[in-house]
This record gives sequence, C-alpha cells and structure tokens, in this order.
Amino acid sequence: MSEKALGISGAPLLPQIDSPADLRKLSPDRLPQLCSEIREFLIQSLSQNPGHFASSMGSVELTVALHYVFNTPYDRIVWDVGHQAYGHKILTGRRDTFSTLRKFGGLSGFPSPSESEYDTFAAGHASNAISAGLGMSVASRLRGESPRRNVVAVVGDASISGGLSFEGINNAANTPNNLLIILNDNDMSIDENVGALNSYLTQINTSRLYNDIRYKAYRLLRRMHLVSDRSRGALLRFNNSLKSLLGGRQNLFEGFNIRYFGPFDGNDIATVIRVLNDIRDMEGPRILHLRTVKGKGYAPAEADPASWHAPGRFDPATGKRAEAVPDPTKPPKYQDVFGDTLVELAQKNKAITAISAAMLSGTSVGTMQAVMPERVFDVGISEGHAVTFAGGLAKDGMRPFVAIYSSFLQRAYDHIIHDVALNKLPVTFCIDRAGLVGEDGATHHGVFDLAYLRTIPNMTVAAPRDEHMLRNLLYTAQEGNHGPFAIRYPRGRGTRTDWRNEMHALPIGKGEKLTEGSDAVILSIGVTDAAKAVEAAKAKGISVAYYDMVFLKPLDTELLREAASKNVPLITVEDGTVNGGLGSAVAEWLADNKIEVPLRRIGVPDTFIPQGTPAQLQHLAGIDTEAIVRAVEEVVKPQSKD
Amino acid sequence: MSEKALGISGAPLLPQIDSPADLRKLSPDRLPQLCSEIREFLIQSLSQNPGHFASSMGSVELTVALHYVFNTPYDRIVWDVGHQAYGHKILTGRRDTFSTLRKFGGLSGFPSPSESEYDTFAAGHASNAISAGLGMSVASRLRGESPRRNVVAVVGDASISGGLSFEGINNAANTPNNLLIILNDNDMSIDENVGALNSYLTQINTSRLYNDIRYKAYRLLRRMHLVSDRSRGALLRFNNSLKSLLGGRQNLFEGFNIRYFGPFDGNDIATVIRVLNDIRDMEGPRILHLRTVKGKGYAPAEADPASWHAPGRFDPATGKRAEAVPDPTKPPKYQDVFGDTLVELAQKNKAITAISAAMLSGTSVGTMQAVMPERVFDVGISEGHAVTFAGGLAKDGMRPFVAIYSSFLQRAYDHIIHDVALNKLPVTFCIDRAGLVGEDGATHHGVFDLAYLRTIPNMTVAAPRDEHMLRNLLYTAQEGNHGPFAIRYPRGRGTRTDWRNEMHALPIGKGEKLTEGSDAVILSIGVTDAAKAVEAAKAKGISVAYYDMVFLKPLDTELLREAASKNVPLITVEDGTVNGGLGSAVAEWLADNKIEVPLRRIGVPDTFIPQGTPAQLQHLAGIDTEAIVRAVEEVVKPQSKD
Repeated sequence: MSEKALGISGAPLLPQIDSPADLRKLSPDRLPQLCSEIREFLIQSLSQNPGHFASSMGSVELTVALHYVFNTPYDRIVWDVGHQAYGHKILTGRRDTFSTLRKFGGLSGFPSPSESEYDTFAAGHASNAISAGLGMSVASRLRGESPRRNVVAVVGDASISGGLSFEGINNAANTPNNLLIILNDNDMSIDENVGALNSYLTQINTSRLYNDIRYKAYRLLRRMHLVSDRSRGALLRFNNSLKSLLGGRQNLFEGFNIRYFGPFDGNDIATVIRVLNDIRDMEGPRILHLRTVKGKGYAPAEADPASWHAPGRFDPATGKRAEAVPDPTKPPKYQDVFGDTLVELAQKNKAITAISAAMLSGTSVGTMQAVMPERVFDVGISEGHAVTFAGGLAKDGMRPFVAIYSSFLQRAYDHIIHDVALNKLPVTFCIDRAGLVGEDGATHHGVFDLAYLRTIPNMTVAAPRDEHMLRNLLYTAQEGNHGPFAIRYPRGRGTRTDWRNEMHALPIGKGEKLTEGSDAVILSIGVTDAAKAVEAAKAKGISVAYYDMVFLKPLDTELLREAASKNVPLITVEDGTVNGGLGSAVAEWLADNKIEVPLRRIGVPDTFIPQGTPAQLQHLAGIDTEAIVRAVEEVVKPQSKD
Repeated sequence: MSEKALGISGAPLLPQIDSPADLRKLSPDRLPQLCSEIREFLIQSLSQNPGHFASSMGSVELTVALHYVFNTPYDRIVWDVGHQAYGHKILTGRRDTFSTLRKFGGLSGFPSPSESEYDTFAAGHASNAISAGLGMSVASRLRGESPRRNVVAVVGDASISGGLSFEGINNAANTPNNLLIILNDNDMSIDENVGALNSYLTQINTSRLYNDIRYKAYRLLRRMHLVSDRSRGALLRFNNSLKSLLGGRQNLFEGFNIRYFGPFDGNDIATVIRVLNDIRDMEGPRILHLRTVKGKGYAPAEADPASWHAPGRFDPATGKRAEAVPDPTKPPKYQDVFGDTLVELAQKNKAITAISAAMLSGTSVGTMQAVMPERVFDVGISEGHAVTFAGGLAKDGMRPFVAIYSSFLQRAYDHIIHDVALNKLPVTFCIDRAGLVGEDGATHHGVFDLAYLRTIPNMTVAAPRDEHMLRNLLYTAQEGNHGPFAIRYPRGRGTRTDWRNEMHALPIGKGEKLTEGSDAVILSIGVTDAAKAVEAAKAKGISVAYYDMVFLKPLDTELLREAASKNVPLITVEDGTVNGGLGSAVAEWLADNKIEVPLRRIGVPDTFIPQGTPAQLQHLAGIDTEAIVRAVEEVVKPQSKD
C-alpha cells in the first residue's frame, strides 16, 4: 500500500477529517488508508450500536470519492434511501456523534436535512433521489448559479427499479440539467433483487468491451480538446459507430438519451475518482454505473449480505451476531405470526397468493415463498404495482394478501382507491410496522394508515390487539368476500408463546368488551397500552372499562352506543395520527348522534415523530400507559383541572 | 372497398352486432365497412352528447380487431384510462344505450366492471392496465384454466410512460405469464407528450427495417413449424444476429426481455388482425406497438387532435364546436383564474416555477408556458415525480406550483408526506377538479383531498370560496415561506367577471365571518351552496350565520370558539368526504375542548359517487342548497324531528 511510504502514514487519517474540506487536502494515495479506517470505524461502532451495516460498508470508496471530487456542500449529493450513507455522515462532521446513531435525540439513520447541510434531501422511502436531484439541478440552472452547482443522485440498483426513479429518468432525459446519477449496484437491496431491470443490469457486463472502449475514446478526445462538452450529438454518433463496429447491444439508458458510463469497480477508489473527475463537468444528464460489494471489507457480511443488512449487535472479531439465534422462549414477532399463519391458510385456501414489495424477509412473506413459491410474488420496490397487480389477481378469482410496511403503503393510496376499493375486490392488506416503529424514525413510522384508509369507501380496516386476533383477522379476511380488507399490526414481538390458536372468523365491524368499569371507558384499537392503563388506574382506585373496537371501519356503533350509555367519559386510544383515526371516528359519531358524553382522544400528535426506542416515542407522543392514566385521571376528576 | 362486392353489403352491419360473437361471424373483408359505421356512429352520437372523441376515433380498427381475434369476454381486454374504449362499448351490447353515455344513471365514460362483463377493470387513472392485466394473466395460469385465457392490456403512449406502467413491465418480464401489451401510440395523450420514452417511441421507426424483417422471419418460421413458442431463446438469438446484420439499435422493450413487435399501422384493420392472429397464442409477455391517428376519419379532429380530445357538442357536417369560442360575458373557469394569476405572480416572483403532469391545458398551466416556457415543466403522467421534483426545486430556492387534479394527486400522497412536508419545503399544490366533478364519475371526483391532506403534518390546506380568494391564496402561498401549501378549487366556472382583483396576503389559518345569524352557524370551506342556503333559510324565517373557514389546516379555532359561544347548532359544509375533512376537524375540536353544541356535518357520504351533472351529484350526495336548508331546519327545530 502506497500510503505506508509517505512517512506520516503511521498516523490515523480519520481523526483529522472534520469535514470534506479536510478530506480534499489528502493526496489520492492516502485514500485507500482512509477507506480502511472508515470501515474499521463502522465495524467497531455498529457492532455495539446497531444500524444498517452492509450497504454502508459497500459504499465507502464511493462516499470518499464523491466528497473528494465534488465541492460539497455547495455541490449536492442526494442519497436514495440512505442506508449507505453512514460513511457520508462520518466524513461530514458527525464522526464524534456517530455513537448516537438511531438513538433518541441522536443522529438519524438516514440523511436528514435538519441534521446537516450535507444531507440535502429526505431519505428513507426508495427511489426519490433522481426526481429530487433533478429539481436541484434545474433550480441551480434557473438561478444562474456560478460556478455551476453539481448535483449527484446516488441510487441503489433496487431503488432505480421503482416507478418513481423511472419517472425521474424519463423527465431528466428531456429537461436541460446536469444531473449525475450514480447507480450503486450491489445486486441486491435488503433481499435479493427482482425484475427485468435487475436482470438487465446483471447482463450489462456483456457490453463491457464496448463501454470500455467508448469511455477510453471519450477521455482521449477530451484530453486532445477534440470533444467539447457541447458536441453531444457528434459523440453519440461516434458511440453508435463504435457500437456497430463492436456488435455491442445498445444500452438501455442510452435508449432514454442519457449518457451511460460503466460498469466500473466501485470498490476501487482510484478508478472511482478518475471516472468522477472525468465526467464531473460534462453537460447534460448522465449515469455512472458502479459495481460494489455489499458488506465489502468484512468477510461475514460479504458472505451473507442479506442477513448483514441490519445485523444488530455483533462481535467484531468473530462476526457472531447477538440476535442471529431465535429464542423459543420469547413470543414471536408479529410479522412471523403473520408469515406462519399465511402458510397455514394458503395450504387450505388455494386461491391465496402473497405479494411482497422487496420485503420478503421484513414481512415474513418469505415463509410462504419457501413452501409454495409459485403463489408468492416479490415485485420489487413498487408498492403501487403490488396493489394494482393484486387487484388483477383478485378480479380473476385469486385472494391476494399484499404485505407492505405501513409507511411504504402510503405510495399506493390511489391504487387502493382506484384499483381495489372502487370495485370491491377481495384484496387483503397486511400492513406491518404500523404505529411508531422506533429507531428508523420519521420516515418509517406507520401513523397515517388508520386515517387515510378510513377515507376510502368499501374498505374494512382492522387492527388486532394480540397474536390470536391477528390470526383470526387473517382467517376472516380470506373467508367469504368482504372486499378490500386491511389488517395493521406493529413491529416487534407480541406477548404470547402460545400464539398458534385454532382460528375462527370474527364478525366484521364488531368490537369486544374486555373489562367492565364505571368511571370511564377506554375505546382502543390495535396493540396499545390500554390494558396496562386500566390496571394502573385500578390501582389508583379508578374503575375503567376497556373496549377493543377491533375494527376502525365499519365502526361498531352498537358497542359505542352501549359505552356512551354509561354516561361516563370515553377515551380513545390508538397509535396513529389524531387527525382522522379512531378518535375522529368516535367524535364524528357522537356529534352525528347528538350524544353528549366527554371524549378524550389519545393518539399520535400532528407532527413528525423522531427516532428513539418505541417506549421513548410512545412517551413522547403521549400514548403510553402513563399518558393514558393521566388522561383517565383528568377526565374522571375534571373539577380539579378546569 | 371489397365489401361493396359482397352483394349484401348494402345493409348496415353495426345494427346487427349485439355482441362480439356477432362480430366474429363477419368475414374479414366486411370489417372496413364496420369500422366506417362505428366512426359514423361515434360522430353522430358524440356531436350531440359530448364525450372523449378523438381517442376512440383513432382506436376503431384496434377495437374491432381485438374482439374479432380474441374470445371476449373469456379473454380479457384491459383498457388503460379508457378514453379510447367507446367503440368497445358499442360492440359489446351497449350500442342502444350509448346515448346515455356520461349521463346520470347512464353508461360510464370509462370501462366499468359494474356495467359490463366486457369491462374487466376500473379505468380512469392512467397506467394501471399492465399491472392489472398481469394479475389476471397470472390468476388464469394459477387456476389452470383451459383453454388458456388471453389477457390484453391496451395502453396509450402517454400512459406507458407512467411509473406504474414501468413497474408493471419490470415485473411482467420476470413472471411467468402470457400478457399481451398493446401500445396504442398516437403520439399524444390529452396534450402533446413529453419525456424520454416518448422521444424513443418517435425514433423507433429508424429500426423499422429490422423489426419488419424480424417479424416476417418469425411468421415464416412459424408457418414452417420451425419455431415452437417455447424456443424463445433461439428466437432471441436469431433476432440478435439479425440486428447485428442490419446494424439496427436494440429495442428498449427487449432490453426488458419482453418481445416487441412493431410499429404497425394500427388504423389498417387487415394488418392489425393479421398481427394479432400471429401473436395471439405465443407464450410469454409481449408488446405490440401500433401507430394510430388520434381523431382518425374525421378531418377536423385529425387536424387538431388536442382540441378534439373532448370537444363538447359539434356540428358533424362542419366540425364547428359549440364551446370553441370563449364567451367574455361569462365568468372564467377557476382553472383560468389560476392560470392567469400564476403568470401575474411569476412575472414578479422569479422563483416561481410551475409543474404539470400531462395536463397543461386542463390545469391552464399552459398559460404560463406560453410566456415563460423555461420555468414551466410538463413532466408527463407522473404525479409522484411531479411532487418530488418540486421538492428538489423548493429545496434549492425555487417556489414551485404543482398543478394536479385532486383525484390524480392521490398518486402522490406519500411524495407529499416524505419529499415535501417532512422538510417543510415551500411547494404550493394547486389542486384543480376538487369536489364532485360531474360526468367523469367515480374515478375523477376530488373528494378525498381535504381528508388525506389534513393527516399530513406541516401542511397548510385552504380552499377559496370564490375567484378573488383563489387569487389571494395563490398570492399568500408564494409570499413568505409557509412550507407546503395546498389550495383546492373546483372544476368549471366561478361567478365573477370582475375576477382580477388587487391581490393581498390572507392571514394563515384565519376564517371569515360573512353573515351574522342567530339560529345556527354554517361553517363552510371552499365553493359550496352555503350562501344560497343562508338566503333560502332566511326566506323561511331562519336566521343562519355563515362563516367561511377558508383554511382546513390550521383550523381557525378562535372563529370556532366564537361560533360555538352563540350556543346554537353548528353545520359544517364541504364537498369532500365526511370521513376526515372539515366536519371531522370541527367534531374533534368540540370534543377536545369539551364544548357541547350540536354539530351537523354535511359532506360527501362514504361511498363512490357515480357520474351526472354536478347539480345532480350534489343533490345525490346531499350537499346542495336543498340538503343544507333541510339540515338547518332539522337542527334548528329538533323537537319536530326527534
């Protein structure tokens, strides 16, 4: 390694880098050492404080090269999703606070503009970087900024196959701009990638000779000043001749009129810097295709990158992961109750099919895929297509179960309305990660689903309070034809080890009276702290009834009428936004029926909730046991408060 | 014309076609006559009863050929959007009821599964046909149906450039299925098409020789039984050799591993039938590219297809259109008040940019494009990209105004949350066609926007009651930085000819007290019949106050408190869903503040509202003057009702 020869190379470099300006003072031959130090830093840090590991390990050279070649933060880097941006955080003044990553009050696990000027745009939901970067590039041109502001969108090979990326490329190609799209291709997202575009990217090496020669020719001509950046037409003609000459296949992106360079080895820092320098000042949109290795530089992660996407705590020396071994004494995760139950149901009901949008492991749809792969469809990062495709399946006799995280299903709001609900098609929405998800923070909380699903005619919207009810709701959804049926459940584990109950159908739109009480009635939906609050209130001498509404829609108005007839305060409890969910439905019902009993609505306030542990966030949002008990005390003893 | 030679050719054919089975009895040489008769039928019918004219005129041969070659309704035709499906309706048993098209209780202007078994899937929102058709094709395979069910998705060249189409193609290429995608390419949607894919389609003729030879070679080999439909690999290799030989460029769709045929003349019935017969029984997904002429067969429409997309009434003989001449004595449409005001504002505020998603005319963004094209972006049918692109523009100093119809903006719900609201970016959403739009029916009503926008933190949501307020809200949105700002307004004309007021900023979150009254208070938002109802109630001796809330979010709680302090019933009036809009917000506020005054919520009920005139639908939905007055009477004299 050349850095050894430099004399001062014994000194670690990373502690000296407080901003990209420091980085840009290094000579190029010091950069491999810096990359090694970043990797070591990531391993040490993330083994203790878990996060997204493998993606950031794979993109170390790319990250260093971007900040080395581009004048950040004046030049913009837009990270898509942002799992890969830890190195970027470390190099942009956040090395010393990196241990707060994903903790309450700490650094976000994703790029976050409110955290740093180097984080240019919200990240977390896939495929937005090209569209956002295009906006920045066009803004810079319209404002006539000088020097030209370079904008780089860094997109993974999974994200680039989302419809939004396609829309961005389609528009970028026909709009004056200088956007550089970097395709960071590690041949997988969280799970293995799927779809035609991915197959295409895998095969693109076949055209390597053509691309290589073309790139070298471009460099040569550029050095000889024979190619101005404006003479694009001539260059394209040159490329076409070259292609004919070599018999290469036309590049897909060039079909879209975007210049393509690659594929190059994205883990070779010298190559990445050379290419970035070469194409940095080109005019017009262009795509640089880099191949990187997910988990690069840490053998256990390279060998099993899917498991190492977000591995939890691990021993740096051995690669032994703290959470790798299932613990049968613990209750299972809700996602696994869903995954196992889906298989049980699908074995009996041959019409059941399952759809995942690039989340076979995250949703546990992979459990069904393992035993009946022909009835499981992983459609990649394309939530809209997942839902419309399900509509087509349901139209012709199948019973699709679409499993998507709550916050990602927001992408398919219109598809649920137009392609499923309008024709009352029997699609079951299995909405995982509902409520406050914890460390992933604002972009990932599933707090809007109850409210936005309630706006849709013909929908049934339910949330189980425990594992048995989740199973019964899944059973109910596939039995009979109830039209579109949404079941939302939280991240993490339930409370039962004896979760595999004998399933039965639940009456649609019927809640359950769980606890009698005379001072107030809690109306709850889904997994909440309602039961704990009832117990805690009891300890304080307050008798609170607990009704589980089970269904947000249709609402159990009979049960509501019964609750209201007690003439004591009602308290609604839910882990979704207060703007439109259960509390709103009950407020509407009371008004519509001219019933005058006090109502206290407990839900997630109308603000973006940050990251933290679920307990911290439930406390912050005012939906935990303590908050519910406080509300109970306030409504039961109003004289002391008013 | 050969049909003249058939002896019985004097008899009109169309009256004898009551179903596709009748059509399939005709000999092929009668089909040109049938196409002529369908065109004449369309001209006569649509000149009297307006609808989407030019698209259906262009697709007559395709429609006849599809029902001739495929065994509908067993085989499935999935129309994308469905503007082009009038011929399909006429041939599938709806000829005699065609005069009810787009009328209350009549035939839908779009394919509608509740209307006919030949209409396989909901249509109206673009780009869903490939995903839905893929679902049907996969369902048929999983169910082992015999004979094989063919599924054909008919997609326009504008729809195919939407992200959802791309997601569908990306998935179709890697999933076992026999979907036939027909690209009905007339080089425009409603306005001129944009984007890289469209440029690509325009250039595809350059490869015509290659495609022609390839297709002929395929047919020859097939007739000689040298090509089984399974020997796909060999065929692709053959194609690649052929391509090398001819120096042609690789086809974009074949980059996605989907077989491509075309382009063919889609207005030549013999060609279309021959090609459809040839590729009908092929295995695997495939794309047939047909060029058609929008407005084909009616000279005025061929000459100006954009104006003839939905021309209104016209004189069949002269092509003179009833609505072509602007009438300066009438108040302008809201969209034009917006379009003209946008130009006024943009002339002063250089940061203003405008974005349209393939609706330059429909939203009147075209007005600004005409005078400052460099600041106007028509991004094609890609609402998600439109919003995220606006986020990027806003992030770097621009003030984008995104003009999208209410029901289409549903596609961008997540993009509004994640790419705009999360970082409080100053994007103004100009939401046209809000409320009940009329003849376009269930897919196009803009009734969810108030409810779903209210769920989003950091949003300002406003609706003007008239043209002056629309202008003032637009002015307010661009002045200062209020973060994301939604302004929704209805289809059609306002009430003022003196609409061009001197603009001024409105206080954010402040409503206006318009009429005093002592028996009840109407709280209204947007364009409603509230003022008329107040007058009508007055005539009945009931004194009703009228408060315009102006902002749904933030809610003017001071004004609410003042209204509630009168201790008379409150009545909310809005033209959006009752599940989550103004009525819900007021019900929540009353409950949260323990204020016990009666509340009556008037809004669109929780069901999909059909088509009709706006007046008919407002009556049906119970939001017209009559319904409001009835509600006033009920709440003011409760003793007579309870």
